[in-house]
Amino acid sequence: MEEDPTLQLRVFDLNCWAIRYLSKRRQERVQLIGDTLRREGFDLVLLQEVWSEGDYSVLKETLGSCYPFSHYFRSGVIGSGLCVFSRFPILDTFLYQYSLNGYPYMLQHGDWFCGKSVGLVVIKISGIVFNIYVTHLHAEYCREKDAYLPHRVVQAWELAQFIRHTSKAADVVLLGGDLNMHPEDVGIRLLRACTGLRDAFAEAQRFEGCEAGCTLVPDNCFTVKTELQPFPLGIRIDYILYKAVSDFAVKCEELRTTTGTAPGKDIPYSDHEAVMATLHVRRQSRTPEPTLGTAEPALADAVNEARTEVRVGLQAARRRRYASGRMALLALLLLLLQAAAGLGSLAGWAPGQPLPKLSFCLLASLAAGALLLAAGLHLFHTREVKMLQGTEEEMRLALRALQGRLGAA
Amino acid sequence: MEEDPTLQLRVFDLNCWAIRYLSKRRQERVQLIGDTLRREGFDLVLLQEVWSEGDYSVLKETLGSCYPFSHYFRSGVIGSGLCVFSRFPILDTFLYQYSLNGYPYMLQHGDWFCGKSVGLVVIKISGIVFNIYVTHLHAEYCREKDAYLPHRVVQAWELAQFIRHTSKAADVVLLGGDLNMHPEDVGIRLLRACTGLRDAFAEAQRFEGCEAGCTLVPDNCFTVKTELQPFPLGIRIDYILYKAVSDFAVKCEELRTTTGTAPGKDIPYSDHEAVMATLHVRRQSRTPEPTLGTAEPALADAVNEARTEVRVGLQAARRRRYASGRMALLALLLLLLQAAAGLGSLAGWAPGQPLPKLSFCLLASLAAGALLLAAGLHLFHTREVKMLQGTEEEMRLALRALQGRLGAA
Repeated sequence: MEEDPTLQLRVFDLNCWAIRYLSKRRQERVQLIGDTLRREGFDLVLLQEVWSEGDYSVLKETLGSCYPFSHYFRSGVIGSGLCVFSRFPILDTFLYQYSLNGYPYMLQHGDWFCGKSVGLVVIKISGIVFNIYVTHLHAEYCREKDAYLPHRVVQAWELAQFIRHTSKAADVVLLGGDLNMHPEDVGIRLLRACTGLRDAFAEAQRFEGCEAGCTLVPDNCFTVKTELQPFPLGIRIDYILYKAVSDFAVKCEELRTTTGTAPGKDIPYSDHEAVMATLHVRRQSRTPEPTLGTAEPALADAVNEARTEVRVGLQAARRRRYASGRMALLALLLLLLQAAAGLGSLAGWAPGQPLPKLSFCLLASLAAGALLLAAGLHLFHTREVKMLQGTEEEMRLALRALQGRLGAA
Repeated sequence: MEEDPTLQLRVFDLNCWAIRYLSKRRQERVQLIGDTLRREGFDLVLLQEVWSEGDYSVLKETLGSCYPFSHYFRSGVIGSGLCVFSRFPILDTFLYQYSLNGYPYMLQHGDWFCGKSVGLVVIKISGIVFNIYVTHLHAEYCREKDAYLPHRVVQAWELAQFIRHTSKAADVVLLGGDLNMHPEDVGIRLLRACTGLRDAFAEAQRFEGCEAGCTLVPDNCFTVKTELQPFPLGIRIDYILYKAVSDFAVKCEELRTTTGTAPGKDIPYSDHEAVMATLHVRRQSRTPEPTLGTAEPALADAVNEARTEVRVGLQAARRRRYASGRMALLALLLLLLQAAAGLGSLAGWAPGQPLPKLSFCLLASLAAGALLLAAGLHLFHTREVKMLQGTEEEMRLALRALQGRLGAA
C-alpha cells in the first residue's frame, strides 16, 4: 500500500499570564506575543490566561491575516482564559467546565472565579479530522501541602473522560495547556493512561529550549523565585500531548520552548515559557488493535492512586461541610434565643433587657451575617462532597472493570 | 446482502417526583415504581427526580435481580436526580452539568440547587453500541411570562452539542427525559434539528395512553389543576427520542404512557406519566449520506429563533448585573460615609454623632449585609451574562456556517 504524504503541523502553546490590573507589562507582552505569532506563522495556537476579551480582540486583530480562524471560550465570572487561533477553518467547538475548581472565599488565589474548563475545537486538514483540546487546570500554590490536589485530580479525571468521549470520530487528538502538574504527578499519569495521549517532550526527535523542558524557570524575570527554590532547573507544567487512531501515525519531529527573555526584548512573553511542537502526521496501513499490554496495569495504578487523593479530599470536604453546618446551626440558635429574649422583654415577662440595646442589635446582626455565610458555605461544601463522591464512585467502577479485564487476561 | 435479525429494546422513562419531605406518598410510590419495573422487565429504565440516594438504593435493591446494572448521577447541591437501570452491562458513563440553571435566590423553585445535567451511559447489545442519554431541563413555572426560557434554551443547545460531540462512535442514540418543553417549543425544535433525533411519539406505529401523548394530565391526582387549565388534555413534556447511524435503522413499534392511577392502586406512580417505547433496531445496508435537504433550513430557523431568546435573556441578565452592581456600590458608599463620620466624631472633628449609636450600628450592619449580598449577586449575574454571550456567539457561528452551506447549495 502506498503511503500518503506527510502532513506537518506546527503548534504553539502558551499560558499568557494576561490578568488585567495584576500582570506586569501585560499590554506590551500581548502585543509581543501577537507580533511573534504573526511572524512565525504556526498552524495552530493554543493560549491560556487571556482573561480579558479586550486582549483577545487585540490578538485577533493582529493575527487576522495569518490565522483567519479563532475562538474564545467564555466561562465562569472572569472567563476561561482559553482561546485558539488557527490557519485552518474551525468546524466545531465545545466547552466543558470542570465541576470542582477551588473555593470562592480563597480570593487571593482566585481560580474559582475563572471557571476553569477544557475547550474543544475541531478542524480538518487534508481530510484528517483533528480534535484540538486546550485547557488550564487549578494552580498548585504549595506543593508540600497542596489543598487543591483533590480538585486538580478530579479535573484531570474529567479532562480524560471528556477527551475519551468526544474524540471517538477524530483521527488525531491534540491537547495543549497549562496542566499545573509535574510530569510524574498522579493527575498527569491518570490523564495519559486514560486517554493514551503521548507527551511531545518525551517523544520529540529534537529538543531545544529550557533544560528538562521546563516551562516555569528561574531565569524568567516574572517567576516567583522563592516558589521555584526546590527546583533549580524550574518545573515542567505546560504540555503538548497527542495521539492518533490506528489509521494514522503522529510523530513529534521537534519540540522547542522559549527561554526567558524574548529575542531582542528585555522581557519574556509571559511568566511561563511557550511550548512549540512540530508534528508529522501520516496515514498508515491499519495496525491491529493493541492487546492487553503494559497500559492497563499503569492505568489501574494511576486510578488507584487518584482515588486515594479523591478520598482524602472527600474527608476534608466532609469536615468543612460539617463545620459550616454546625456554625449555621449555632448562629440560628443565637438568633432564636435573642428573638425569644426580645419578645420576652417586650411582653414584660423578663425583669429587664439583660444586654444594652446596642450590644443586643450588634449581636443579632452578627448572628444573622454568620447564619447567611455559614449556610452558603454549607451548600458549597455539600456540592463539593457530592462531586468528590461521584468521581470516587466513577473511579471505583473503572477500577472494577479494569481488574475484571486484567483478571481475565 | 442478508439483513441481521431485529433487536427489540423496551425502554421506560419517568420523572419520579421523589422530593424528600415535599412529594406526596413518596416512599409508597418509589416502592410501586420498583415493583412495576421488576414485573414488567424492561431493557432500560431512565428515571428523573430521584433526588435522594436513599430512594435510589431502595430501587437498586428492588431491581437488582432484573436490572443488574445501574448508575446514579451525582451533581449540584441536591443531586441531578438522574439514574439509569439496565439489563445490559453499562460500559461507560459521563455527566455534563448545564452552565445555566435558574437562580439560587429563587428558593421556591429550587432548580438551581439540583445541578440539572445530562447523563450518558454507554451499553452494547449484540455488538451494537447504544449511547443512552437521560436528562431533566429547567422547569417552566409560568408559560405566559417564562423567566427561565433563555436558560432552558441554553440547556437545550448544550444538550444538543453534548449529544453531537459524544455520540460519534455510537450506532444508536437514545434520549429520555423530562425536557419541560412542549413538542413545538423552540428548544425542542433546536435539539431535534441539531441532533437529528426523532420523536418516538410521532414515529410510533402503535400508540396507547393519554390523549396526544400527554405526560402531565389533569386526571393525575398529583398535578396542579390550575396550571393545566389552558391545556384541557394536558401537556407532553416527557420524551423518548432516538436515531441510528446509517448502518442501522430504528423503528418505534409501540409507544405507551401510563394514564393516571396505577393499576390496582389508588395513586399514580408520579405527577408525570411514564413513557414506554418498544424500539426495533436492525442493521441495514449503508444508505448514502443525506444531501442538503429540508433539515438544514429547519435548523437555521430553530437556531435563529433560539438566538433571539438568548438575546432577550442576555438583556435581562445585563440589567440584573447592572442593578446588583449599583446596589453594591451604594452600600459601599454608605459604609464609607459611616466610617468617615464615625472616625470624624472619634477624632473630635464633628460637633457630635448625628445619629444615635444604635441606629448608626444598625445602619452599618444593614449596609454591610447589602454589600455582601449585592456583590454575590453581581458575580452571579456576571457569570450568567458570560454564559449567555458565549451561547449567543456559538449560535451566531453555527448560523453563519449553515447560511454558507445553504447559499452554496
